[in-house]
Amino acid sequence: MELIEGKPVAQAILNELAERVGKNPASRPCVAFIRVGEDPASVYYVRSKQKTAEKIGIESRLNVLPDTISQQALFAEIDALNADPKVHGILVQAPLPDHLDERATFNRVSPDKDVDGFNQVNLGRLVQEDPSAFVACTPAGVVEMIKRHRIETAGKHVVVIGRSLIVGKPAALLFMRKAEFANSTVTVCHSRTQNLAEITRQADILIAAIGRAGYVTKDMVKPGAVVIDVGINRVDDPQSAKGYKIAGDVQFDEVAPQCKAITPVPGGVGLMTVAMLMSNTVKAWEASNR
Amino acid sequence: MELIEGKPVAQAILNELAERVGKNPASRPCVAFIRVGEDPASVYYVRSKQKTAEKIGIESRLNVLPDTISQQALFAEIDALNADPKVHGILVQAPLPDHLDERATFNRVSPDKDVDGFNQVNLGRLVQEDPSAFVACTPAGVVEMIKRHRIETAGKHVVVIGRSLIVGKPAALLFMRKAEFANSTVTVCHSRTQNLAEITRQADILIAAIGRAGYVTKDMVKPGAVVIDVGINRVDDPQSAKGYKIAGDVQFDEVAPQCKAITPVPGGVGLMTVAMLMSNTVKAWEASNR
Repeated sequence: MELIEGKPVAQAILNELAERVGKNPASRPCVAFIRVGEDPASVYYVRSKQKTAEKIGIESRLNVLPDTISQQALFAEIDALNADPKVHGILVQAPLPDHLDERATFNRVSPDKDVDGFNQVNLGRLVQEDPSAFVACTPAGVVEMIKRHRIETAGKHVVVIGRSLIVGKPAALLFMRKAEFANSTVTVCHSRTQNLAEITRQADILIAAIGRAGYVTKDMVKPGAVVIDVGINRVDDPQSAKGYKIAGDVQFDEVAPQCKAITPVPGGVGLMTVAMLMSNTVKAWEASNR
Repeated sequence: MELIEGKPVAQAILNELAERVGKNPASRPCVAFIRVGEDPASVYYVRSKQKTAEKIGIESRLNVLPDTISQQALFAEIDALNADPKVHGILVQAPLPDHLDERATFNRVSPDKDVDGFNQVNLGRLVQEDPSAFVACTPAGVVEMIKRHRIETAGKHVVVIGRSLIVGKPAALLFMRKAEFANSTVTVCHSRTQNLAEITRQADILIAAIGRAGYVTKDMVKPGAVVIDVGINRVDDPQSAKGYKIAGDVQFDEVAPQCKAITPVPGGVGLMTVAMLMSNTVKAWEASNR
Protein backbone atom coordinates (compact mmCIF):
# COMPACT_ATOMS: atom_id res chain seq x y z
CA MET A 1 0.00 0.00 0.00
CA GLU A 2 1.33 3.38 -1.08
CA LEU A 3 0.56 6.43 1.06
CA ILE A 4 -0.07 9.50 -1.10
CA GLU A 5 0.89 12.34 1.17
CA GLY A 6 0.01 15.90 0.32
CA LYS A 7 3.07 17.55 1.76
CA PRO A 8 5.77 16.47 -0.73
CA VAL A 9 3.49 17.04 -3.73
CA ALA A 10 2.33 20.43 -2.45
CA GLN A 11 5.93 21.40 -1.65
CA ALA A 12 7.12 20.44 -5.14
CA ILE A 13 4.37 22.60 -6.65
CA LEU A 14 5.14 25.54 -4.36
CA ASN A 15 8.86 25.31 -5.26
CA GLU A 16 8.02 25.42 -8.96
CA LEU A 17 5.69 28.37 -8.39
CA ALA A 18 8.33 30.29 -6.40
CA GLU A 19 10.65 29.88 -9.38
CA ARG A 20 8.03 31.19 -11.82
CA VAL A 21 7.31 34.14 -9.54
CA GLY A 22 11.05 34.91 -9.35
CA LYS A 23 11.36 35.11 -13.13
CA ASN A 24 9.72 38.51 -13.30
CA PRO A 25 11.23 40.71 -10.58
CA ALA A 26 9.44 43.78 -11.98
CA SER A 27 6.05 42.52 -10.82
CA ARG A 28 4.60 40.36 -8.07
CA PRO A 29 1.45 38.27 -8.12
CA CYS A 30 -1.23 39.46 -5.73
CA VAL A 31 -4.24 37.59 -4.40
CA ALA A 32 -7.02 39.39 -2.54
CA PHE A 33 -9.17 37.62 0.02
CA ILE A 34 -12.64 38.69 1.04
CA ARG A 35 -13.81 37.25 4.33
CA VAL A 36 -17.32 37.98 5.53
CA GLY A 37 -17.66 37.70 9.31
CA GLU A 38 -15.54 35.89 11.85
CA ASP A 39 -16.31 32.21 11.32
CA PRO A 40 -13.32 30.50 13.00
CA ALA A 41 -12.78 27.99 10.18
CA SER A 42 -12.79 30.82 7.59
CA VAL A 43 -10.36 32.84 9.71
CA TYR A 44 -8.06 29.82 9.88
CA TYR A 45 -8.27 28.97 6.17
CA VAL A 46 -7.65 32.50 4.96
CA ARG A 47 -4.72 32.92 7.33
CA SER A 48 -3.07 29.70 6.18
CA LYS A 49 -3.54 30.69 2.52
CA GLN A 50 -1.93 34.06 3.23
CA LYS A 51 1.02 32.41 4.98
CA THR A 52 1.65 30.09 2.06
CA ALA A 53 1.38 32.97 -0.40
CA GLU A 54 4.00 34.94 1.49
CA LYS A 55 6.44 32.03 1.45
CA ILE A 56 6.56 31.91 -2.33
CA GLY A 57 6.59 35.63 -3.06
CA ILE A 58 2.88 36.14 -3.66
CA GLU A 59 1.49 39.31 -2.14
CA SER A 60 -1.89 39.05 -0.44
CA ARG A 61 -4.58 41.38 0.81
CA LEU A 62 -7.44 40.73 3.15
CA ASN A 63 -10.75 42.59 3.21
CA VAL A 64 -12.78 41.62 6.25
CA LEU A 65 -16.43 42.61 5.89
CA PRO A 66 -19.14 42.56 8.56
CA ASP A 67 -21.52 39.59 8.38
CA THR A 68 -24.38 42.07 8.06
CA ILE A 69 -23.05 43.36 4.72
CA SER A 70 -25.61 43.63 1.92
CA GLN A 71 -25.28 41.79 -1.38
CA GLN A 72 -24.83 45.10 -3.20
CA ALA A 73 -22.06 46.25 -0.85
CA LEU A 74 -20.29 42.90 -1.27
CA PHE A 75 -20.59 43.27 -5.05
CA ALA A 76 -19.06 46.74 -4.79
CA GLU A 77 -16.04 45.31 -2.93
CA ILE A 78 -15.62 42.66 -5.61
CA ASP A 79 -16.02 45.21 -8.41
CA ALA A 80 -13.26 47.35 -6.91
CA LEU A 81 -10.89 44.37 -6.84
CA ASN A 82 -11.93 43.37 -10.38
CA ALA A 83 -10.95 46.85 -11.54
CA ASP A 84 -7.65 46.99 -9.67
CA PRO A 85 -4.80 46.08 -12.06
CA LYS A 86 -2.51 45.23 -9.11
CA VAL A 87 -4.81 42.38 -8.03
CA HIS A 88 -4.48 39.18 -10.06
CA GLY A 89 -6.58 36.77 -8.04
CA ILE A 90 -9.72 37.21 -5.91
CA LEU A 91 -11.07 34.69 -3.43
CA VAL A 92 -14.32 35.14 -1.54
CA GLN A 93 -14.07 32.69 1.36
CA ALA A 94 -17.11 30.42 1.61
CA PRO A 95 -19.42 29.74 3.34
CA LEU A 96 -21.17 33.11 3.23
CA PRO A 97 -23.94 34.16 5.66
CA ASP A 98 -27.36 32.91 4.58
CA HIS A 99 -28.66 36.26 3.32
CA LEU A 100 -25.92 36.40 0.66
CA ASP A 101 -26.22 34.51 -2.64
CA GLU A 102 -23.05 32.43 -3.09
CA ARG A 103 -23.60 31.68 -6.75
CA ALA A 104 -24.18 35.34 -7.64
CA THR A 105 -21.13 36.29 -5.57
CA PHE A 106 -18.85 33.79 -7.33
CA ASN A 107 -20.19 34.95 -10.69
CA ARG A 108 -19.39 38.57 -9.81
CA VAL A 109 -15.64 37.88 -9.63
CA SER A 110 -13.95 38.61 -12.96
CA PRO A 111 -13.38 35.27 -14.74
CA ASP A 112 -9.75 36.27 -15.29
CA LYS A 113 -9.20 36.70 -11.53
CA ASP A 114 -11.39 33.82 -10.42
CA VAL A 115 -8.64 31.73 -8.78
CA ASP A 116 -11.29 29.69 -6.94
CA GLY A 117 -12.76 28.47 -10.24
CA PHE A 118 -16.40 28.83 -9.15
CA ASN A 119 -17.42 31.52 -11.67
CA GLN A 120 -19.79 30.23 -14.35
CA VAL A 121 -17.35 31.18 -17.11
CA ASN A 122 -14.59 29.01 -15.66
CA LEU A 123 -16.99 26.14 -15.03
CA GLY A 124 -18.07 26.42 -18.67
CA ARG A 125 -14.44 26.49 -19.83
CA LEU A 126 -13.87 23.30 -17.85
CA VAL A 127 -16.80 21.63 -19.63
CA GLN A 128 -15.31 22.83 -22.94
CA GLU A 129 -11.88 21.45 -21.92
CA ASP A 130 -10.35 24.89 -22.41
CA PRO A 131 -6.89 24.88 -20.79
CA SER A 132 -7.24 28.56 -19.89
CA ALA A 133 -9.94 27.63 -17.33
CA PHE A 134 -9.27 28.20 -13.66
CA VAL A 135 -10.25 24.92 -12.07
CA ALA A 136 -11.55 24.62 -8.49
CA CYS A 137 -8.54 24.07 -6.22
CA THR A 138 -9.49 20.84 -4.44
CA PRO A 139 -10.31 18.74 -7.52
CA ALA A 140 -7.37 20.27 -9.39
CA GLY A 141 -5.22 19.18 -6.44
CA VAL A 142 -6.59 15.64 -6.67
CA VAL A 143 -5.58 15.43 -10.33
CA GLU A 144 -2.14 16.80 -9.47
CA MET A 145 -1.60 14.09 -6.81
CA ILE A 146 -2.66 11.39 -9.28
CA LYS A 147 -0.34 12.86 -11.91
CA ARG A 148 2.73 13.15 -9.72
CA HIS A 149 2.25 9.59 -8.47
CA ARG A 150 1.88 8.43 -12.11
CA ILE A 151 -1.40 6.66 -11.41
CA GLU A 152 -2.96 5.33 -14.59
CA THR A 153 -6.37 6.90 -15.29
CA ALA A 154 -7.08 6.25 -18.99
CA GLY A 155 -9.98 3.83 -19.34
CA LYS A 156 -10.10 3.36 -15.57
CA HIS A 157 -13.29 3.75 -13.60
CA VAL A 158 -13.29 6.85 -11.39
CA VAL A 159 -16.17 6.94 -8.91
CA VAL A 160 -16.83 10.26 -7.20
CA ILE A 161 -19.05 10.29 -4.10
CA GLY A 162 -20.51 13.79 -3.91
CA ARG A 163 -21.91 16.14 -6.54
CA SER A 164 -20.95 19.55 -5.12
CA LEU A 165 -19.87 22.50 -7.22
CA ILE A 166 -16.68 22.66 -5.17
CA VAL A 167 -15.46 19.09 -5.56
CA GLY A 168 -17.73 16.44 -7.05
CA LYS A 169 -18.78 18.00 -10.33
CA PRO A 170 -15.44 19.57 -11.32
CA ALA A 171 -13.63 16.33 -10.35
CA ALA A 172 -15.97 14.37 -12.64
CA LEU A 173 -15.44 16.85 -15.49
CA LEU A 174 -11.65 16.72 -15.03
CA PHE A 175 -11.41 12.93 -15.16
CA MET A 176 -13.63 12.57 -18.25
CA ARG A 177 -11.53 15.02 -20.33
CA LYS A 178 -9.65 13.86 -23.41
CA ALA A 179 -6.32 14.48 -21.71
CA GLU A 180 -3.43 12.84 -19.96
CA PHE A 181 -4.33 11.80 -16.40
CA ALA A 182 -7.97 11.85 -17.48
CA ASN A 183 -9.80 9.78 -20.16
CA SER A 184 -11.51 7.89 -17.34
CA THR A 185 -14.95 6.37 -17.18
CA VAL A 186 -16.60 8.53 -14.53
CA THR A 187 -19.49 7.83 -12.16
CA VAL A 188 -20.96 10.44 -9.83
CA CYS A 189 -22.79 9.09 -6.77
CA HIS A 190 -24.55 11.09 -4.05
CA SER A 191 -27.11 10.99 -1.27
CA ARG A 192 -29.83 9.71 -3.60
CA THR A 193 -27.75 6.86 -5.07
CA GLN A 194 -29.24 3.38 -4.70
CA ASN A 195 -26.86 0.46 -4.01
CA LEU A 196 -23.97 2.81 -3.30
CA ALA A 197 -21.51 0.15 -2.13
CA GLU A 198 -22.14 -1.92 -5.23
CA ILE A 199 -21.06 1.03 -7.37
CA THR A 200 -18.12 2.22 -5.28
CA ARG A 201 -16.71 -1.33 -5.25
CA GLN A 202 -16.23 -0.99 -9.00
CA ALA A 203 -13.96 2.02 -8.65
CA ASP A 204 -10.35 1.78 -9.74
CA ILE A 205 -10.06 5.28 -8.29
CA LEU A 206 -12.51 6.25 -5.55
CA ILE A 207 -12.88 9.92 -4.65
CA ALA A 208 -14.72 10.49 -1.38
CA ALA A 209 -16.20 13.99 -1.08
CA ILE A 210 -19.22 13.44 1.10
CA GLY A 211 -18.38 15.44 4.20
CA ARG A 212 -19.21 12.69 6.72
CA ALA A 213 -16.46 11.28 8.90
CA GLY A 214 -15.63 7.65 8.24
CA TYR A 215 -18.46 7.16 5.76
CA VAL A 216 -16.48 4.94 3.39
CA THR A 217 -15.94 1.51 4.92
CA LYS A 218 -13.90 -1.50 3.83
CA ASP A 219 -16.80 -3.23 2.09
CA MET A 220 -17.24 -0.22 -0.21
CA VAL A 221 -13.73 -0.42 -1.68
CA LYS A 222 -12.35 -2.88 -4.21
CA PRO A 223 -9.04 -4.47 -3.20
CA GLY A 224 -6.29 -2.74 -5.17
CA ALA A 225 -8.19 0.54 -5.60
CA VAL A 226 -6.72 4.02 -5.27
CA VAL A 227 -8.65 6.00 -2.64
CA ILE A 228 -8.60 9.79 -2.51
CA ASP A 229 -10.15 11.17 0.67
CA VAL A 230 -11.34 14.75 0.25
CA GLY A 231 -13.21 14.90 3.56
CA ILE A 232 -12.15 17.31 6.30
CA ASN A 233 -14.51 16.64 9.22
CA ARG A 234 -14.28 17.71 12.85
CA VAL A 235 -14.83 14.82 15.22
CA ASP A 236 -15.12 15.07 19.02
CA ASP A 237 -11.91 13.97 20.69
CA PRO A 238 -11.85 14.51 24.46
CA GLN A 239 -8.19 13.45 24.58
CA SER A 240 -7.04 16.35 22.39
CA ALA A 241 -6.43 19.81 23.80
CA LYS A 242 -8.86 21.34 21.30
CA GLY A 243 -11.52 18.77 22.09
CA TYR A 244 -11.74 17.62 18.48
CA LYS A 245 -9.68 16.04 15.73
CA ILE A 246 -9.84 16.15 11.94
CA ALA A 247 -11.09 13.00 10.21
CA GLY A 248 -11.60 12.13 6.57
CA ASP A 249 -14.60 10.59 4.82
CA VAL A 250 -12.81 7.22 4.74
CA GLN A 251 -12.31 4.73 7.60
CA PHE A 252 -8.58 4.86 6.98
CA ASP A 253 -7.52 2.06 9.34
CA GLU A 254 -9.73 -0.60 7.81
CA VAL A 255 -9.64 0.61 4.19
CA ALA A 256 -5.91 1.37 3.78
CA PRO A 257 -4.57 -2.21 4.00
CA GLN A 258 -6.52 -3.30 0.92
CA CYS A 259 -5.70 -0.24 -1.23
CA LYS A 260 -3.11 0.16 -3.92
CA ALA A 261 -2.72 3.76 -2.73
CA ILE A 262 -4.58 6.08 -0.37
CA THR A 263 -4.41 9.67 0.85
CA PRO A 264 -4.40 10.32 4.61
CA VAL A 265 -6.46 12.94 6.48
CA PRO A 266 -4.97 15.21 7.69
CA GLY A 267 -1.89 15.46 5.50
CA GLY A 268 -3.49 14.57 2.19
CA VAL A 269 -5.70 16.49 -0.23
CA GLY A 270 -6.13 19.44 2.16
CA LEU A 271 -2.57 20.64 1.59
CA MET A 272 -3.09 20.42 -2.16
CA THR A 273 -6.02 22.83 -2.10
CA VAL A 274 -3.83 25.69 -0.89
CA ALA A 275 -1.05 24.79 -3.36
CA MET A 276 -3.50 24.85 -6.28
CA LEU A 277 -4.84 28.23 -5.17
CA MET A 278 -1.28 29.53 -5.43
CA SER A 279 -0.93 27.85 -8.81
CA ASN A 280 -4.09 29.56 -10.08
CA THR A 281 -2.85 32.91 -8.77
CA VAL A 282 0.48 32.58 -10.57
CA LYS A 283 -1.37 31.52 -13.73
CA ALA A 284 -3.60 34.62 -13.49
CA TRP A 285 -0.56 36.85 -12.92
CA GLU A 286 1.35 35.37 -15.87
CA ALA A 287 -1.72 35.83 -18.11
CA SER A 288 -1.97 39.48 -17.01
CA ASN A 289 1.70 40.04 -17.90
CA ARG A 290 1.22 38.77 -21.44
CA MET B 1 -42.26 -2.55 -24.07
CA GLU B 2 -43.23 1.09 -24.39
CA LEU B 3 -42.20 3.02 -27.50
CA ILE B 4 -41.22 6.59 -26.64
CA GLU B 5 -41.93 8.46 -29.84
CA GLY B 6 -40.67 11.97 -30.38
CA LYS B 7 -43.60 13.25 -32.39
CA PRO B 8 -46.35 13.46 -29.73
CA VAL B 9 -43.95 14.90 -27.13
CA ALA B 10 -42.49 17.42 -29.58
CA GLN B 11 -45.98 18.37 -30.74
CA ALA B 12 -47.20 18.92 -27.16
CA ILE B 13 -44.22 21.20 -26.54
CA LEU B 14 -44.75 23.12 -29.79
CA ASN B 15 -48.44 23.63 -28.94
CA GLU B 16 -47.52 25.04 -25.54
CA LEU B 17 -44.92 27.30 -27.15
CA ALA B 18 -47.39 28.59 -29.76
CA GLU B 19 -49.68 29.56 -26.90
CA ARG B 20 -46.90 31.42 -25.09
CA VAL B 21 -45.95 33.22 -28.30
CA GLY B 22 -49.56 34.23 -28.84
CA LYS B 23 -49.77 35.86 -25.42
CA ASN B 24 -47.80 38.90 -26.51
CA PRO B 25 -49.15 40.06 -29.89
CA ALA B 26 -47.03 43.23 -29.72
CA SER B 27 -43.81 41.30 -30.26
CA ARG B 28 -42.65 38.10 -31.96
CA PRO B 29 -39.72 35.88 -31.04
CA CYS B 30 -36.98 35.81 -33.67
CA VAL B 31 -34.20 33.29 -34.14
CA ALA B 32 -31.29 33.97 -36.49
CA PHE B 33 -29.37 31.14 -38.16
CA ILE B 34 -25.84 31.41 -39.44
CA ARG B 35 -24.88 28.73 -41.92
CA VAL B 36 -21.33 28.60 -43.24
CA GLY B 37 -21.10 26.90 -46.63
CA GLU B 38 -23.45 24.48 -48.34
CA ASP B 39 -23.03 21.21 -46.42
CA PRO B 40 -26.20 19.29 -47.40
CA ALA B 41 -26.94 18.10 -43.85
CA SER B 42 -26.60 21.67 -42.54
CA VAL B 43 -28.86 22.99 -45.31
CA TYR B 44 -31.45 20.36 -44.35
CA TYR B 45 -31.25 20.95 -40.59
CA VAL B 46 -31.50 24.73 -40.82
CA ARG B 47 -34.42 24.50 -43.23
CA SER B 48 -36.35 22.15 -40.97
CA LYS B 49 -35.71 24.39 -37.96
CA GLN B 50 -37.00 27.39 -39.92
CA LYS B 51 -40.14 25.50 -40.97
CA THR B 52 -40.93 24.53 -37.38
CA ALA B 53 -40.32 28.09 -36.21
CA GLU B 54 -42.77 29.44 -38.76
CA LYS B 55 -45.48 27.01 -37.67
CA ILE B 56 -45.56 28.35 -34.12
CA GLY B 57 -45.19 32.05 -34.86
CA ILE B 58 -41.44 32.38 -34.41
CA GLU B 59 -39.77 34.59 -36.98
CA SER B 60 -36.48 33.37 -38.40
CA ARG B 61 -33.59 34.77 -40.40
CA LEU B 62 -30.85 33.00 -42.27
CA ASN B 63 -27.38 34.38 -42.96
CA VAL B 64 -25.51 32.13 -45.37
CA LEU B 65 -21.78 32.82 -45.35
CA PRO B 66 -19.12 31.50 -47.74
CA ASP B 67 -17.05 28.61 -46.40
CA THR B 68 -13.96 30.73 -46.98
CA ILE B 69 -15.08 33.29 -44.41
CA SER B 70 -12.47 34.34 -41.84
CA GLN B 71 -12.92 33.91 -38.11
CA GLN B 72 -12.99 37.69 -37.69
CA ALA B 73 -15.67 38.15 -40.35
CA LEU B 74 -17.75 35.41 -38.75
CA PHE B 75 -17.36 37.14 -35.37
CA ALA B 76 -18.53 40.40 -36.96
CA GLU B 77 -21.70 38.68 -38.20
CA ILE B 78 -22.34 37.27 -34.72
CA ASP B 79 -21.63 40.65 -33.09
CA ALA B 80 -24.20 42.33 -35.34
CA LEU B 81 -26.85 39.80 -34.32
CA ASN B 82 -25.84 40.09 -30.65
CA ALA B 83 -26.45 43.84 -30.90
CA ASP B 84 -29.77 43.59 -32.77
CA PRO B 85 -32.64 43.94 -30.25
CA LYS B 86 -35.05 42.28 -32.69
CA VAL B 87 -33.08 39.01 -32.59
CA HIS B 88 -33.69 36.86 -29.49
CA GLY B 89 -31.87 33.67 -30.42
CA ILE B 90 -28.75 32.96 -32.49
CA LEU B 91 -27.71 29.56 -33.80
CA VAL B 92 -24.47 28.94 -35.68
CA GLN B 93 -25.02 25.62 -37.44
CA ALA B 94 -22.21 23.12 -36.78
CA PRO B 95 -20.02 21.62 -38.05
CA LEU B 96 -17.94 24.59 -39.20
CA PRO B 97 -15.13 24.38 -41.77
CA ASP B 98 -11.81 23.29 -40.24
CA HIS B 99 -10.18 26.73 -40.31
CA LEU B 100 -12.84 28.11 -37.95
CA ASP B 101 -12.68 27.60 -34.19
CA GLU B 102 -16.03 26.17 -33.06
CA ARG B 103 -15.47 26.80 -29.36
CA ALA B 104 -14.52 30.45 -29.92
CA THR B 105 -17.49 30.85 -32.25
CA PHE B 106 -19.98 29.43 -29.73
CA ASN B 107 -18.46 31.64 -27.03
CA ARG B 108 -18.93 34.72 -29.22
CA VAL B 109 -22.71 34.39 -29.20
CA SER B 110 -24.26 36.48 -26.43
CA PRO B 111 -25.13 34.14 -23.53
CA ASP B 112 -28.64 35.63 -23.46
CA LYS B 113 -29.21 34.67 -27.12
CA ASP B 114 -27.35 31.35 -27.01
CA VAL B 115 -30.31 29.10 -27.79
CA ASP B 116 -27.91 26.27 -28.68
CA GLY B 117 -26.51 26.24 -25.12
CA PHE B 118 -22.89 25.81 -26.20
CA ASN B 119 -21.55 29.12 -24.87
CA GLN B 120 -19.27 28.71 -21.85
CA VAL B 121 -21.54 30.88 -19.70
CA ASN B 122 -24.53 28.62 -20.29
CA LEU B 123 -22.45 25.49 -19.73
CA GLY B 124 -21.28 27.02 -16.44
CA ARG B 125 -24.84 27.90 -15.47
CA LEU B 126 -25.79 24.27 -16.10
CA VAL B 127 -22.99 23.11 -13.77
CA GLN B 128 -24.29 25.62 -11.19
CA GLU B 129 -27.87 24.30 -11.68
CA ASP B 130 -29.03 27.80 -12.57
CA PRO B 131 -32.51 27.51 -14.11
CA SER B 132 -31.80 30.52 -16.34
CA ALA B 133 -29.27 28.43 -18.31
CA PHE B 134 -29.94 27.65 -21.94
CA VAL B 135 -29.33 23.92 -22.14
CA ALA B 136 -28.14 22.16 -25.31
CA CYS B 137 -31.22 21.10 -27.25
CA THR B 138 -30.64 17.36 -27.66
CA PRO B 139 -29.98 16.50 -24.00
CA ALA B 140 -32.72 18.93 -22.91
CA GLY B 141 -35.03 17.01 -25.27
CA VAL B 142 -34.00 13.70 -23.69
CA VAL B 143 -34.97 15.01 -20.24
CA GLU B 144 -38.27 16.28 -21.63
CA MET B 145 -39.12 12.83 -23.07
CA ILE B 146 -38.29 11.18 -19.75
CA LYS B 147 -40.40 13.75 -17.92
CA ARG B 148 -43.47 13.49 -20.11
CA HIS B 149 -43.38 9.69 -19.91
CA ARG B 150 -43.05 9.98 -16.10
CA ILE B 151 -39.98 7.75 -16.01
CA GLU B 152 -38.49 7.57 -12.52
CA THR B 153 -34.93 8.94 -12.41
CA ALA B 154 -34.23 9.68 -8.71
CA GLY B 155 -31.57 7.30 -7.42
CA LYS B 156 -31.58 5.43 -10.73
CA HIS B 157 -28.39 4.72 -12.64
CA VAL B 158 -28.14 6.72 -15.86
CA VAL B 159 -25.31 5.59 -18.12
CA VAL B 160 -24.35 7.93 -20.96
CA ILE B 161 -22.21 6.57 -23.79
CA GLY B 162 -20.41 9.57 -25.28
CA ARG B 163 -18.72 12.59 -23.70
CA SER B 164 -19.37 15.29 -26.31
CA LEU B 165 -20.10 18.92 -25.52
CA ILE B 166 -23.29 18.60 -27.55
CA VAL B 167 -24.85 15.58 -25.85
CA GLY B 168 -22.84 13.47 -23.42
CA LYS B 169 -21.58 16.07 -20.97
CA PRO B 170 -24.73 18.20 -20.70
CA ALA B 171 -26.86 15.04 -20.41
CA ALA B 172 -24.69 13.86 -17.49
CA LEU B 173 -24.92 17.27 -15.81
CA LEU B 174 -28.70 17.37 -16.26
CA PHE B 175 -29.31 13.96 -14.70
CA MET B 176 -27.09 14.57 -11.68
CA ARG B 177 -28.88 17.81 -10.71
CA LYS B 178 -30.82 18.09 -7.46
CA ALA B 179 -34.09 18.36 -9.33
CA GLU B 180 -37.17 16.47 -10.39
CA PHE B 181 -36.45 14.09 -13.28
CA ALA B 182 -32.81 14.17 -12.21
CA ASN B 183 -31.13 13.10 -8.91
CA SER B 184 -29.68 10.13 -10.77
CA THR B 185 -26.41 8.32 -10.27
CA VAL B 186 -24.61 9.14 -13.52
CA THR B 187 -21.87 7.31 -15.39
CA VAL B 188 -20.17 8.69 -18.50
CA CYS B 189 -18.55 6.11 -20.80
CA HIS B 190 -16.65 6.75 -24.03
CA SER B 191 -14.18 5.35 -26.52
CA ARG B 192 -11.55 4.77 -23.82
CA THR B 193 -13.86 2.91 -21.43
CA GLN B 194 -12.75 -0.58 -20.42
CA ASN B 195 -15.43 -3.29 -20.01
CA LEU B 196 -18.07 -1.10 -21.61
CA ALA B 197 -20.80 -3.76 -21.74
CA GLU B 198 -20.33 -4.55 -18.06
CA ILE B 199 -21.05 -0.91 -17.24
CA THR B 200 -23.90 -0.31 -19.68
CA ARG B 201 -25.65 -3.46 -18.37
CA GLN B 202 -26.03 -1.68 -15.03
CA ALA B 203 -28.00 1.19 -16.55
CA ASP B 204 -31.59 1.73 -15.51
CA ILE B 205 -31.58 4.43 -18.20
CA LEU B 206 -29.08 4.06 -21.05
CA ILE B 207 -28.37 7.05 -23.28
CA ALA B 208 -26.54 6.15 -26.48
CA ALA B 209 -24.73 9.11 -28.05
CA ILE B 210 -21.82 7.49 -29.82
CA GLY B 211 -22.52 8.26 -33.46
CA ARG B 212 -22.01 4.69 -34.72
CA ALA B 213 -24.94 2.83 -36.26
CA GLY B 214 -26.10 -0.18 -34.30
CA TYR B 215 -23.27 0.01 -31.76
CA VAL B 216 -25.44 -0.94 -28.76
CA THR B 217 -26.36 -4.61 -28.88
CA LYS B 218 -28.66 -6.76 -26.79
CA ASP B 219 -25.90 -8.00 -24.47
CA MET B 220 -25.12 -4.40 -23.46
CA VAL B 221 -28.60 -3.68 -22.09
CA LYS B 222 -30.18 -4.84 -18.83
CA PRO B 223 -33.64 -6.37 -19.24
CA GLY B 224 -36.17 -3.75 -18.13
CA ALA B 225 -33.94 -0.76 -18.93
CA VAL B 226 -35.08 2.47 -20.57
CA VAL B 227 -33.02 3.09 -23.74
CA ILE B 228 -32.68 6.55 -25.28
CA ASP B 229 -31.07 6.46 -28.71
CA VAL B 230 -29.50 9.80 -29.66
CA GLY B 231 -27.69 8.50 -32.76
CA ILE B 232 -28.56 9.79 -36.22
CA ASN B 233 -26.32 7.84 -38.62
CA ARG B 234 -26.50 7.48 -42.39
CA VAL B 235 -26.28 3.86 -43.47
CA ASP B 236 -26.04 2.65 -47.09
CA ASP B 237 -29.36 1.33 -48.30
CA PRO B 238 -29.45 0.42 -52.01
CA GLN B 239 -33.19 -0.24 -51.78
CA SER B 240 -34.01 3.35 -50.87
CA ALA B 241 -34.29 6.08 -53.48
CA LYS B 242 -31.69 8.20 -51.67
CA GLY B 243 -29.29 5.26 -51.39
CA TYR B 244 -29.15 5.53 -47.62
CA LYS B 245 -31.30 5.32 -44.53
CA ILE B 246 -31.08 6.82 -41.04
CA ALA B 247 -30.11 4.46 -38.24
CA GLY B 248 -29.63 4.99 -34.52
CA ASP B 249 -26.77 3.92 -32.26
CA VAL B 250 -28.88 1.03 -30.94
CA GLN B 251 -29.69 -2.30 -32.66
CA PHE B 252 -33.36 -1.58 -32.21
CA ASP B 253 -34.75 -4.94 -33.36
CA GLU B 254 -32.78 -7.03 -30.89
CA VAL B 255 -32.68 -4.52 -28.00
CA ALA B 256 -36.31 -3.31 -27.98
CA PRO B 257 -37.98 -6.56 -26.85
CA GLN B 258 -36.10 -6.59 -23.55
CA CYS B 259 -36.58 -2.88 -22.73
CA LYS B 260 -39.07 -1.25 -20.44
CA ALA B 261 -39.12 1.65 -22.90
CA ILE B 262 -37.07 2.72 -25.94
CA THR B 263 -36.93 5.59 -28.44
CA PRO B 264 -36.95 4.77 -32.16
CA VAL B 265 -34.67 6.29 -34.84
CA PRO B 266 -35.93 8.05 -36.85
CA GLY B 267 -38.94 9.41 -34.99
CA GLY B 268 -37.37 9.68 -31.54
CA VAL B 269 -34.93 12.14 -29.99
CA GLY B 270 -34.25 13.92 -33.31
CA LEU B 271 -37.66 15.58 -33.30
CA MET B 272 -37.09 16.75 -29.74
CA THR B 273 -33.94 18.67 -30.65
CA VAL B 274 -35.86 21.06 -32.89
CA ALA B 275 -38.66 21.44 -30.33
CA MET B 276 -36.17 22.36 -27.60
CA LEU B 277 -34.52 24.92 -29.88
CA MET B 278 -37.92 26.55 -30.20
CA SER B 279 -38.38 26.33 -26.43
CA ASN B 280 -35.03 28.06 -25.85
CA THR B 281 -35.97 30.76 -28.36
CA VAL B 282 -39.28 31.48 -26.63
CA LYS B 283 -37.47 31.52 -23.27
CA ALA B 284 -34.95 34.06 -24.62
CA TRP B 285 -37.75 36.19 -26.05
CA GLU B 286 -39.73 36.13 -22.80
CA ALA B 287 -36.60 37.09 -20.84
CA SER B 288 -36.00 40.01 -23.22
CA ASN B 289 -39.58 41.23 -22.68
CA ARG B 290 -39.14 41.35 -18.91
